[in-house]
Amino acid sequence: MNKYAVYHKPESNYAYATADHKLTLVLKMAAGDIPDRVEILYNNKYDFTKRRSSCLMHRCATGVDFAYYRADFTLPDARLAYIFKIYHKGRVYYYSEEGLTTDYDFELAYYTFFQFPFINAVDVMPVLEWTRHAVFYQIFVDRFARGDFKKDDSYINTPWDGRITRYSFTGGDLEGIISKLPYLKDLGVNALYLTPIFLSDSNHKYNVKDYAVVDPQFGDKNTLLKLLSLAHASGMKVILDAALNHCDITHPYFEDVMQRGRASPYFNWFMYVGGPEREAGSYAHFADCTYMPKWNTGNPLARRYLADVALNWLKYGFDGLRLDVADEVSHVMWRQLRLEIKQSYPRALILGEIWHLNEHWLRGDQFDGVMNYKLQKILMDYFGMFSIKAVYAAARLNDLLMDNTEQANAMALNFLDDHDTPRAFRFVGGNTDKLLCALCAEVMFPGMPCVFYGTELALDGAGDPDSRRTFDWAAEQDPEFKQKLKEILALKQRPELEGGRAEISAERGMLKMARSNGDAGLTAYFNTSGRSVQFEPCGEVVLGVNFKQNRLLNNGMAVVANIKQ
Amino acid sequence: MNKYAVYHKPESNYAYATADHKLTLVLKMAAGDIPDRVEILYNNKYDFTKRRSSCLMHRCATGVDFAYYRADFTLPDARLAYIFKIYHKGRVYYYSEEGLTTDYDFELAYYTFFQFPFINAVDVMPVLEWTRHAVFYQIFVDRFARGDFKKDDSYINTPWDGRITRYSFTGGDLEGIISKLPYLKDLGVNALYLTPIFLSDSNHKYNVKDYAVVDPQFGDKNTLLKLLSLAHASGMKVILDAALNHCDITHPYFEDVMQRGRASPYFNWFMYVGGPEREAGSYAHFADCTYMPKWNTGNPLARRYLADVALNWLKYGFDGLRLDVADEVSHVMWRQLRLEIKQSYPRALILGEIWHLNEHWLRGDQFDGVMNYKLQKILMDYFGMFSIKAVYAAARLNDLLMDNTEQANAMALNFLDDHDTPRAFRFVGGNTDKLLCALCAEVMFPGMPCVFYGTELALDGAGDPDSRRTFDWAAEQDPEFKQKLKEILALKQRPELEGGRAEISAERGMLKMARSNGDAGLTAYFNTSGRSVQFEPCGEVVLGVNFKQNRLLNNGMAVVANIKQ
Repeated sequence: MNKYAVYHKPESNYAYATADHKLTLVLKMAAGDIPDRVEILYNNKYDFTKRRSSCLMHRCATGVDFAYYRADFTLPDARLAYIFKIYHKGRVYYYSEEGLTTDYDFELAYYTFFQFPFINAVDVMPVLEWTRHAVFYQIFVDRFARGDFKKDDSYINTPWDGRITRYSFTGGDLEGIISKLPYLKDLGVNALYLTPIFLSDSNHKYNVKDYAVVDPQFGDKNTLLKLLSLAHASGMKVILDAALNHCDITHPYFEDVMQRGRASPYFNWFMYVGGPEREAGSYAHFADCTYMPKWNTGNPLARRYLADVALNWLKYGFDGLRLDVADEVSHVMWRQLRLEIKQSYPRALILGEIWHLNEHWLRGDQFDGVMNYKLQKILMDYFGMFSIKAVYAAARLNDLLMDNTEQANAMALNFLDDHDTPRAFRFVGGNTDKLLCALCAEVMFPGMPCVFYGTELALDGAGDPDSRRTFDWAAEQDPEFKQKLKEILALKQRPELEGGRAEISAERGMLKMARSNGDAGLTAYFNTSGRSVQFEPCGEVVLGVNFKQNRLLNNGMAVVANIKQ
Repeated sequence: MNKYAVYHKPESNYAYATADHKLTLVLKMAAGDIPDRVEILYNNKYDFTKRRSSCLMHRCATGVDFAYYRADFTLPDARLAYIFKIYHKGRVYYYSEEGLTTDYDFELAYYTFFQFPFINAVDVMPVLEWTRHAVFYQIFVDRFARGDFKKDDSYINTPWDGRITRYSFTGGDLEGIISKLPYLKDLGVNALYLTPIFLSDSNHKYNVKDYAVVDPQFGDKNTLLKLLSLAHASGMKVILDAALNHCDITHPYFEDVMQRGRASPYFNWFMYVGGPEREAGSYAHFADCTYMPKWNTGNPLARRYLADVALNWLKYGFDGLRLDVADEVSHVMWRQLRLEIKQSYPRALILGEIWHLNEHWLRGDQFDGVMNYKLQKILMDYFGMFSIKAVYAAARLNDLLMDNTEQANAMALNFLDDHDTPRAFRFVGGNTDKLLCALCAEVMFPGMPCVFYGTELALDGAGDPDSRRTFDWAAEQDPEFKQKLKEILALKQRPELEGGRAEISAERGMLKMARSNGDAGLTAYFNTSGRSVQFEPCGEVVLGVNFKQNRLLNNGMAVVANIKQ
């Protein structure tokens, strides 16, 4: 047994409460080690030295290098003391806060056991019920649809069917989205994620000049209220892309600083990198975008202002926030924002844009979920051009799942592409079958699937700005492709896809993703091996791509509704 | 190389900022693996794919199973992208968010590098300057000294020299402490930690009936203000033991609940474990102490009340809080309390009583430090009856150091014993030399040393209540023992002991603890092997116990001031 691989950490993604008296514990070991038995010895922390109960852990996931063992408890008490007991090749090991040992001093255990000291309900992160069946659709507003043909459109510099550059304005707006709500509902979408809509001189509007004003290119407050109201009436949620990391260089507070320097009351609302404040480049900004000065969220006044921006728009009916560049903003800001949001809008969703490891934002004090770039990478590696093998894809998906709590997994925003990446259709080499397979894997993975506008047209595109082409409403949509896409999205309404867990493995060269809920089970098989695989699905095939009646799975997939015995 | 041992985690005790542009990164590997070279490849996160700088990591600590490699950066930018590059036996390994690999795709690195996305100064935990030379003295008020002989002392049920039981009242009070301030100052103490002092029917007063009233057994508000004022005048800090997890069953809010049940406005200020609220045992309480009902800090009103208790007493001049049963209270409560305390009293110290792994309370959002029970256990194992070997003690001390950030280490409260453990003198088998050695190790370890009252008398005692004997002021204090104790405590005033780091190892059977600050170095050698060790100290011996002029270290210790070249 590789003792260096054994790992557990209290109050983390390895030990977390899912409800008032429910606790999940995870132990990590080397994937190649197959212990005879892994147990948890546990009790109320005040009685642990005297007596313990034991509970078997089961291997719930196999990652690239590590395997994960899990146990779920319903506790009579809110306090738990525990250690792990591993039986391996006739030997017994204990794993406690003192590490892996072959003996354990139960008498002085109160110094060395692991503990979950008390499950305080207020610290437990709940899964928002509406997210369990949410199917998102991301709209880049300038490019999706134009509805208002009376507006001053002198800003439009690129015809709808023209070639998109970084500086194109094409005329999409909120009326356009309103006009397409029935279309989106028919597609199976029940939640919209709009890129920013506030006053800004760019087409993407991530550089906000005034957070209180809807950009007239897109409409006004009334258009927005109409959109929210009609979306809600048709059972759709709408979340706002809140760019609170930075604003535009023309934001009046920043302009005041530029004019008055340290004399400005807003001087401390921004950040500076050495040098006199008025010299070019001395203020902190987003990336290399000097037109996007960074807010100083260390300043309580700036925090108050930015939190009020978010709260104000939630008041108007938004159902949540997608926080732009979330990882560069202070944790203090996000903790304050969450407390204030959840107090007034407990059902509002808080998503962070984080491309990297993110567990430290997802402990219940900051975000509900993140934009799942980690999943996107794996799916593109597997279904896309890099063609990793199923066994490796399964292992990486399992590692990803175990990086976070079940709740954070359930509320991750899953996607194949967004406005900052090339189109998935480009990744998969223009193969619509592969695109559907990847979409199905996205839906089968715990979390909330999100479709980037135009995916239903198999819209192509390299990175920004090519990924932000206009939606061609005149194009004839491939009815078969679109029907499959709708069937795939519809899977999310099944009870099997409600939770935050999955069983993922490789089987005869295929990637296998199984979800379950009570007696109901749903399993998807994906074959990208280039060779046909014959198999006998254990249950009813509810959906297939390149799945033949003769039980041959060509490059494609099959989703099977399992019958539990 | 054992690839399963390689571990790093962003924004944790393995990656943290120590100041606005200063970052510490740590990589863990198997202790037995000796890589030729460990590097960090890094850059601003927006330029990482294009080019990287490299920086050598050095092995800073060897634990029981793992070794730790560290690098400290001063960054021109607040954003860092990085991966590790390990050279081992002619092979090269990369370690990134995708795990350990023999190749690395720099082109798509923005998906897989580790990142410290932005050092926001407001998230960085500072070390409070006054803690760098703090020497604490813990006083169990009823047992330390009596000063007020005019008070109603009918509550005293045990003479000062009588045998202590769990229910003894012996008459110690705040006037007693005041009268001993010169004595404490002479001892080298500059900070007091008082067990609770508010209205309560017990001798320990952890069950508070009224947080606004000083218990008349101990004095009144004026006595307290006098103590705080005189302590401050003589350069001493005083911290309050705040028992906010629970109160006494006679607290008026709880009594109201007992009388009116759900109709009480305070019903939701407490927690219940099923069953009708008025039935015995249905309310949550501390441990098996039904007389200590647990506050529900999920209720914002209860949080407001408890935070105001703390803020109110800080207003009267306390220099910090020691939070009782800190691990069972909600994180939401502690986050709120920290924000409010640090806003008004930025120099106030917040310590939590946590016996177990505690990194998740020490990220800058909750506590500054914890009661260091982990250190106590190792020191008692090494200097006490269990007699572990120096090499194992050094390894465990190193693991402990690496469990937390440098700042949290610097603000840990180190002690050999407290009111909840047997006396250290009992642990070391009544050997005063061993007691001095253990005390010296406590002082040499990063953190704030704390002496439990009576240690200077080599006070003996098993666990509670025997560890809480009265201080015998009539006893003749062993002048040699006391002098050594004072010299040991005085070490904490040296610049070498300011920081949060140490180099700890074993050398020829001795435990070696080295501290440094700029050019100054201080090294302590401890020999508990039973055999004398001859050695040539590299520098001036400033303090010794059983250290002979002939350079023989018998069972004992030597502290050496190093001369850096």
